[in-house]
Amino acid sequence: MELNVVIILGLLVAITSCLEKPNIVILFADDLGWGDLGCYGHPTSTSPNLDKMAAEGLKFMNFYSTSPICSPSRASLLTGRYQVRTGMYPGALECGSIGGLPWNETTIAAQLKQAGYGTAIVGKWHLGVGREQQYLPTNYGFDYFLGLPYSHDMCPCYVCFYPQEACYDDCRPESTPCPLYENDKIIQQPADFLKLSETYSSAATGFIHQMAAKKKPFFLYMAFQHTHHPQFSSKMFTNSSIRGTFGDSLNEMDWQVGKIFDAIHGAGIAKNTFVFFTSDNGPSLFRGVRGGSAGPFRCGKGTTYEGGVRMPAIAWWPGRIAPGVTSELTATLDLFPTISNLVNIAVPTDRVIDGIDMSTVLFANTEGGRESLMYYPPNPTPSQGVFAIRYKEYKAHYYTAGTGLYPKYYPDPACNYTKNATHYDPPLLFNLNQDPGELNPLNTSGFPYKEIVDTINQIKIKFEAAVTWAEPEISKGVSNDSKPCAKPGCTPFPQCCTTNDIVPGTTRIIHPGLL
Amino acid sequence: MELNVVIILGLLVAITSCLEKPNIVILFADDLGWGDLGCYGHPTSTSPNLDKMAAEGLKFMNFYSTSPICSPSRASLLTGRYQVRTGMYPGALECGSIGGLPWNETTIAAQLKQAGYGTAIVGKWHLGVGREQQYLPTNYGFDYFLGLPYSHDMCPCYVCFYPQEACYDDCRPESTPCPLYENDKIIQQPADFLKLSETYSSAATGFIHQMAAKKKPFFLYMAFQHTHHPQFSSKMFTNSSIRGTFGDSLNEMDWQVGKIFDAIHGAGIAKNTFVFFTSDNGPSLFRGVRGGSAGPFRCGKGTTYEGGVRMPAIAWWPGRIAPGVTSELTATLDLFPTISNLVNIAVPTDRVIDGIDMSTVLFANTEGGRESLMYYPPNPTPSQGVFAIRYKEYKAHYYTAGTGLYPKYYPDPACNYTKNATHYDPPLLFNLNQDPGELNPLNTSGFPYKEIVDTINQIKIKFEAAVTWAEPEISKGVSNDSKPCAKPGCTPFPQCCTTNDIVPGTTRIIHPGLL
Repeated sequence: MELNVVIILGLLVAITSCLEKPNIVILFADDLGWGDLGCYGHPTSTSPNLDKMAAEGLKFMNFYSTSPICSPSRASLLTGRYQVRTGMYPGALECGSIGGLPWNETTIAAQLKQAGYGTAIVGKWHLGVGREQQYLPTNYGFDYFLGLPYSHDMCPCYVCFYPQEACYDDCRPESTPCPLYENDKIIQQPADFLKLSETYSSAATGFIHQMAAKKKPFFLYMAFQHTHHPQFSSKMFTNSSIRGTFGDSLNEMDWQVGKIFDAIHGAGIAKNTFVFFTSDNGPSLFRGVRGGSAGPFRCGKGTTYEGGVRMPAIAWWPGRIAPGVTSELTATLDLFPTISNLVNIAVPTDRVIDGIDMSTVLFANTEGGRESLMYYPPNPTPSQGVFAIRYKEYKAHYYTAGTGLYPKYYPDPACNYTKNATHYDPPLLFNLNQDPGELNPLNTSGFPYKEIVDTINQIKIKFEAAVTWAEPEISKGVSNDSKPCAKPGCTPFPQCCTTNDIVPGTTRIIHPGLL
Repeated sequence: MELNVVIILGLLVAITSCLEKPNIVILFADDLGWGDLGCYGHPTSTSPNLDKMAAEGLKFMNFYSTSPICSPSRASLLTGRYQVRTGMYPGALECGSIGGLPWNETTIAAQLKQAGYGTAIVGKWHLGVGREQQYLPTNYGFDYFLGLPYSHDMCPCYVCFYPQEACYDDCRPESTPCPLYENDKIIQQPADFLKLSETYSSAATGFIHQMAAKKKPFFLYMAFQHTHHPQFSSKMFTNSSIRGTFGDSLNEMDWQVGKIFDAIHGAGIAKNTFVFFTSDNGPSLFRGVRGGSAGPFRCGKGTTYEGGVRMPAIAWWPGRIAPGVTSELTATLDLFPTISNLVNIAVPTDRVIDGIDMSTVLFANTEGGRESLMYYPPNPTPSQGVFAIRYKEYKAHYYTAGTGLYPKYYPDPACNYTKNATHYDPPLLFNLNQDPGELNPLNTSGFPYKEIVDTINQIKIKFEAAVTWAEPEISKGVSNDSKPCAKPGCTPFPQCCTTNDIVPGTTRIIHPGLL
């Protein structure tokens, strides 16, 4: 970090510490790709509320998640640490997973609670349930949780669109029906997808108004189920988009975003509220027209190409964040230290925090402190280590791997599943500023290949020598007693796990496409 | 066309005919893809003047050229007619081409001249020179021409970047040096790329001020050489972009756009000036990092996939065109009738005009009259006919073909050259609203394949039965006496064709990449 950046940062921290504690809202989309929003260039999406947020705020061009899949990405967002440190690997937690985010991890919610904030998560958690529900959000600094503990395709899927259009998949029939939790209690099982977004919006806006009335600073982590497969939406948004089911889901999410902004403005707290929007990982291209778009980037969810981890991101805070665009290298990891510093709470010193305070980027639209970023595949192993490293505008791939389930006709073999990862020695090097699509590797014998790769190799060696891999929580497997069930011990399991009298399995509507 | 559209159109025409004659400016980029501008989602481009134009104007999401290569696309823009009717096929005109745009074609310039306009073309013509220079712009209604008669890679390439960086190619050493024409006279040969953009801007802005001073309505057709391969730029823009040489070229073009807007504002004529920006065809992906970006669309220049012909497009007219976005199907073809109607000049009735007046789209952001569009490959033949047809949100491919010169590692085989076109019977059908990347063809046995393809087949049969193919001008070949030469009859040909004493061939700087 250069000296002037340190000075600016110091001044910003000094100013910030004198101010009223800001409210913090994180809006987190699910499987939404870089290219899916109108303001990021999608030709048929409509996302008026997010586009407005972008026009009024700071739009990021080089913002990353740490994983091309869900649980690891969410763990990094909340803890500021790479997933290999928190044990959130390999893959994603399932219905019935025994493991979860270790208790000794500190989340943004825990930090803010320490600072006197009211804290709530509304939406998708996906960092564990466990045999004794010990991994639910209320154990990590959240005062309130309303939502599903994992992806909504990790349960059997019933009705996705109004009035009773079946979901485009039967998802996981072997799992218990999708449980809607309020704190540690299942209040609806199966969750009603046609009403879920409105339920979430009411909870989120209710929380905002409640906190504002109490003049209590708050943290709202709004983790949308949209636009994950299988897409769903309420009556209001069914067939609302020319983009089809994905567009309906996006429209509903954008409407939820609008409701949250309405609440912020309505409560008169806009000037004291920092809102950050991003997504957990790239689009599920393997879902065809029901997946999202990575825009100009290669591949999507499940890969360490840019399409898997380069995220749309927008920061908003009227009067504090000037409208604009930034190309600074930044990541979900950086929210933890940025927010901690913003509210003047020390970050834990007994562990490595991988995030870097991005206040200079946010509040002065100037140089940030991040020079490099690690890319981990869905299933990282200590023997392979990082798959790729970004350094300034360059990216070196040491390994690449496709992911399963791409349609057979998907034209780019790099995205498709192969049994083994491809190893590159020397690494494949791209200049992402000039070649965002990662199609034109730099010549290994030309300038500046050698000096850049030498630098990146040094970063890799230093990072990997120091990193401590936590026990892989997701390798602990699944058990029936970790599957959320409103009637513990009931039979026939799992269909009996319901808050209705009707056993949904017996009345399932089958999507015509699946017959 | 629905009745209400007819009524709106009638009203608009009635209103328009009472107004002062508007100035018309067409800004036409070269090989700029849908995804290359900041306002169309490119991650590292900067295009502040075009982005401002988009923010103040109407941005098109479904705007097309008629060809994935240069000459045919330009012929359609200026005449409102498909290239097979005007003879501007197969391929593109070369240095030395004997043929050119037939004299009996009527251009927008000729229409506007008839209406009393001053008319100028600044930049790239590419509709012919001919043995007696009979195809230069001054024969088609342009009062003034300053520019090159074809692409700047159709001559030997010397210096592209400041101070004397050689072009990334030697282009066509067998051609005469690039001739810069003023009207019918070569004023510089070889053209100095490092000063060309400034020369063009001065001419364009000078023309605007001159016309405004005379209170004469004018038509300026500004046909940039940017961002065609090999990219070049003046001192001011060399190394100006993090995107590299393509970015430098784009920055220079955007600066030229800014100069034109400055002139329009400076002359106090903004409220009476209609400016339309678009590009001739998709990006030269086969140029690697020195090609452009098709954004989320498949393939690029040379193919009839969306990447070849879906264009960025922006319409601007303060007070007349409201800021916004339109998804209406529109094309370069439509400018001819739209502009003719705007100035109340009848379109020729002795020929088919393929363009459709898009006034309702421009001035009311409502439904346009276009339901379908034909896609022709670079080398169309009557036996194959149209390669694809767009109908509403659908596109049926009857043939596809890749194009030569894609790098070997280009991952999508659909874009790459094969000897023969692939024929589809039944056609491949895509819903472009849901699947802009053309990756998920609709199931031929599912809904709505049959009814949509039946409709499109009928459109095809009707169109092809009626279309008259003109003699292919570009098949007439090349001759030395059609190659522009400042010293006719000189030796050694072609190097002697220069307005300098130094024969450039003897002092050529060779790009290190080519050694």
